Amino acid sequence: MFESSRSFLTVESSFVAKLISSLPPDIRLEVPAGDDAAVVRPPAMRRTVITVDMLMEGTDFLPFPATDPKAVGYKALAVNLSDLAAMGARPEVAVVAVALPIKHGRTIGDEMLEGMLPLAKQFNIAIAGGDTNSWDNLLVVSVTAIGSVEPGKAWRRDGAVPGDVILVTGAFGGSILGRHLCFLPRCNEALAMTARWEIHAAIDSSDGLSLDLFRMMSASNTGARLECDRIPIHEDARIYAQQGSGQTPLEHAFGDGEDFELILALDPQVASDLINEFKHLFPETPLSVIGTVTATPGIVCVLPNGDMRQLEPRGYQHLFTSNCSLKKSCD
Amino acid sequence: MFESSRSFLTVESSFVAKLISSLPPDIRLEVPAGDDAAVVRPPAMRRTVITVDMLMEGTDFLPFPATDPKAVGYKALAVNLSDLAAMGARPEVAVVAVALPIKHGRTIGDEMLEGMLPLAKQFNIAIAGGDTNSWDNLLVVSVTAIGSVEPGKAWRRDGAVPGDVILVTGAFGGSILGRHLCFLPRCNEALAMTARWEIHAAIDSSDGLSLDLFRMMSASNTGARLECDRIPIHEDARIYAQQGSGQTPLEHAFGDGEDFELILALDPQVASDLINEFKHLFPETPLSVIGTVTATPGIVCVLPNGDMRQLEPRGYQHLFTSNCSLKKSCD
Repeated sequence: MFESSRSFLTVESSFVAKLISSLPPDIRLEVPAGDDAAVVRPPAMRRTVITVDMLMEGTDFLPFPATDPKAVGYKALAVNLSDLAAMGARPEVAVVAVALPIKHGRTIGDEMLEGMLPLAKQFNIAIAGGDTNSWDNLLVVSVTAIGSVEPGKAWRRDGAVPGDVILVTGAFGGSILGRHLCFLPRCNEALAMTARWEIHAAIDSSDGLSLDLFRMMSASNTGARLECDRIPIHEDARIYAQQGSGQTPLEHAFGDGEDFELILALDPQVASDLINEFKHLFPETPLSVIGTVTATPGIVCVLPNGDMRQLEPRGYQHLFTSNCSLKKSCD
Repeated sequence: MFESSRSFLTVESSFVAKLISSLPPDIRLEVPAGDDAAVVRPPAMRRTVITVDMLMEGTDFLPFPATDPKAVGYKALAVNLSDLAAMGARPEVAVVAVALPIKHGRTIGDEMLEGMLPLAKQFNIAIAGGDTNSWDNLLVVSVTAIGSVEPGKAWRRDGAVPGDVILVTGAFGGSILGRHLCFLPRCNEALAMTARWEIHAAIDSSDGLSLDLFRMMSASNTGARLECDRIPIHEDARIYAQQGSGQTPLEHAFGDGEDFELILALDPQVASDLINEFKHLFPETPLSVIGTVTATPGIVCVLPNGDMRQLEPRGYQHLFTSNCSLKKSCD
């Protein structure tokens, strides 16, 4: 059901009702939330892109109050937007289902809204409804996001060809220090790229640069040759290593995940053109060519001295993570 | 992320991967699940209908093993299909996010699939992907279903007009004895109706006939006058009352909810025509005219002796419910 009475009867203030009422009416909704389902006017001549992500308290983030509910609300939507970006899709609509803990559920819900709403506004997402529930247990939030792309234009994982360069946005590693809750999904960058340049394959780095790149290469029946000294290592990876994580900053960059950066494969000439123009469009978004696509499966990393080593795809689960506001704000 | 590696790394057998691989390739999916998101070819010249429902172990059904996981999988999809039916929408696509308990999670997931897959097949739903997670906690499953309708043709709650008759499918009450886990959503009935007859307003009885009817009347700025002896009372309501529930069968019919029957408002002449033809189309689906729409707000019930009583909209939460297979199978 859509905004069920179960919520009406058990949750003092319905999370989803508040979420919806906090956004202006949207022309895309022929029937807005509040009926049995929402009716959306899909954009003409475009495909529908669908993704869903569920976050669970204690598994995806530290139990409250160690984690800021605002950051959870933000992240629940942002991870979906990152998936849309990785398809080159324009965000359109989202629905949100929550199981709120009875204890402090109202406060947690209100604070989650504070994190989610500005992001929905920023990326012009119409919240079309959802399902509010409460239980005597931990928070679970599931967001389904819907975007659109031109027919045949969705970025897939399986289009990389030998000779392509591998381009990444941003920097990698150490997201567990807080960034994984506060990242800005690369939707605008993706839309600008897909409008101007032909991208052969794309994925977002949710589970680790090496693992996600490995997936893209495997899907494409290709491999990758990376220049180790060109991997953009995030400052957080260095801090984490200095804190005695037991890994080098480069290892963190390859294996930590939850960077939510784009990993792209494209023609070298196109990449050169893209990089030149992109810095005027997005001066604050770093772009780095980290290697090339090869016909040989697997990922090889070339060290500065010319030595090569085989890279094992690694992606670690973020079991428990610190509070977003310790590092930076989601505002 | 779409089929995240979190699942890959933590869940022995990914629920969603199995779900997807168990269905044949679907022409509607331009990019099937397995990429960052699925890409769907929306049907031309139709609106997109979106609904989401989350079910939680211990809140929506008795904790395992008291409940058959197969029934949970079935219900998780069926409640969404009922919402699509209540909009007069054709089912198209669904995505499924699960948080599986680590303990017995694999078995629970496999059995949920057994309940969900035949229903997806029966209603020609393309499973476009999802998100598999596991945790040391209770099962949570969230299904987002997407349907389609002709522009302007979605059944809304707010279109009832005084003089309309109120028509319902099936019978009401006592769903807690097991039927709430095993109902067949009225998708086919809804599609047949919307293709042939003009329906002014519709809702599904998820939270109680009186409460859901009250919602429809409120949205339409109308009221209802019901003939008490024409309310179709389910046998389960009588059994439940006989078991000493403390309520009459009629009270169960009005207040129990989770019947997932259609409540419709339409012109009396159209209704007469519909009823005549419908019994040939769906000989096994009862149809009952239970009353008329009035200009006066509120719901009045006329007793067989002519006395009238005001009906308080009631809808009760199904806190804990018995095992589906005790009553009937979901097969």
